[in-house]
Amino acid sequence: MIIQRLQQQIAFIVEVDKIKQIYRRNYVIGGERHETDAEHSWHLAMMAILLAEHVADYPLDVLKVIKMVLIHDIVEIDAGDTYCYDQKGGLDKEVREQAAADRLFRLLPEDQAQELWSLWDEFEQRVSLEARFANALDRLQPLLLHYNTEGKSWQLNGITSDQVIDRNKLTKEISVELGRLVEEIIEDSIRKGYLKTPQEKALFEA
Amino acid sequence: MIIQRLQQQIAFIVEVDKIKQIYRRNYVIGGERHETDAEHSWHLAMMAILLAEHVADYPLDVLKVIKMVLIHDIVEIDAGDTYCYDQKGGLDKEVREQAAADRLFRLLPEDQAQELWSLWDEFEQRVSLEARFANALDRLQPLLLHYNTEGKSWQLNGITSDQVIDRNKLTKEISVELGRLVEEIIEDSIRKGYLKTPQEKALFEA
Ligand SMILES: [Ca+2]
Repeated sequence: MIIQRLQQQIAFIVEVDKIKQIYRRNYVIGGERHETDAEHSWHLAMMAILLAEHVADYPLDVLKVIKMVLIHDIVEIDAGDTYCYDQKGGLDKEVREQAAADRLFRLLPEDQAQELWSLWDEFEQRVSLEARFANALDRLQPLLLHYNTEGKSWQLNGITSDQVIDRNKLTKEISVELGRLVEEIIEDSIRKGYLKTPQEKALFEA
Repeated sequence: MIIQRLQQQIAFIVEVDKIKQIYRRNYVIGGERHETDAEHSWHLAMMAILLAEHVADYPLDVLKVIKMVLIHDIVEIDAGDTYCYDQKGGLDKEVREQAAADRLFRLLPEDQAQELWSLWDEFEQRVSLEARFANALDRLQPLLLHYNTEGKSWQLNGITSDQVIDRNKLTKEISVELGRLVEEIIEDSIRKGYLKTPQEKALFEA
């Protein structure tokens, strides 16, 4: 028999497989299907490795950032994906996600449960530099996918440029260069008609 | 305008999105669709974090293992997924994957291209402890999925226990405990009829 500690770890590893069945609002590039949370999280980890150097207070703890982005969405296994522009769904999001964290992390041995839980909390609180970088990536990655799918999901959900600008505003606080990237993508998206300004949307709906 | 270095990094990040469209032979748990390479890689990174302590020569460089598993399959964007039990497809796999590595890593700034390329190479060569652990995870993860989908993909592909034992033999070389886990899963899979022994298959086909 394998030791209990390993049994607990495997139970968690098997349970979080379900994150492959949580679909996000945005599409993968090519546009034929929605992205899963597991794919999104893989992409964030790749970005953390490649883009960490642009953070103003570099060096930061890249391993910690990676751990955060790998687990940041597992609570959606129970709580579901709350669309970032959904204000109603956002209201009880915290309660639902805390309950999910409780159930999922407790599958692990105590010390690992504590570590992941506190990393998840840190990500949600956005206080540390690592958490702020991880959150900036969590916004930049879908922006890249929206831009490279000609704004398909923005249009289907009636999203306007002011919402996207607001959601991405924390990026320039941690990196001038990444902030500039976000600004350029949003401007070019408006120019190309992928993303409507509030004025354009009002005109369109009138 | 953003600096050229960041442009190169973003070009790579956008290009590797295609790994979300490379489907593997195995199914996600629940069994309704095949797993993508991005999902598989996310799962390996989670496992690296949680299971590193079982490696005999622990501590090892976990960040390095994570980087390896995150990128180990990106060459399949060009080369496709070669099924691990496909001996014919295996023949020119190396040539196809080297060409893919060449094209993909060169999108990055020189220093990052070098780093990821050499990590990919290290993974393929399986010489370092980190590479051996990463390879063991790359075999253990699908084993967990096969077991939890009642061997669906083993049966569809006519795989027998001797092939699975052979493919997973490196695990016990780096970890007694993980080696024991592999052994138990394979034995229980045979017992439950998820996986046929060569004798059972011969009988079945006779
Ligand atoms: Ca592979």
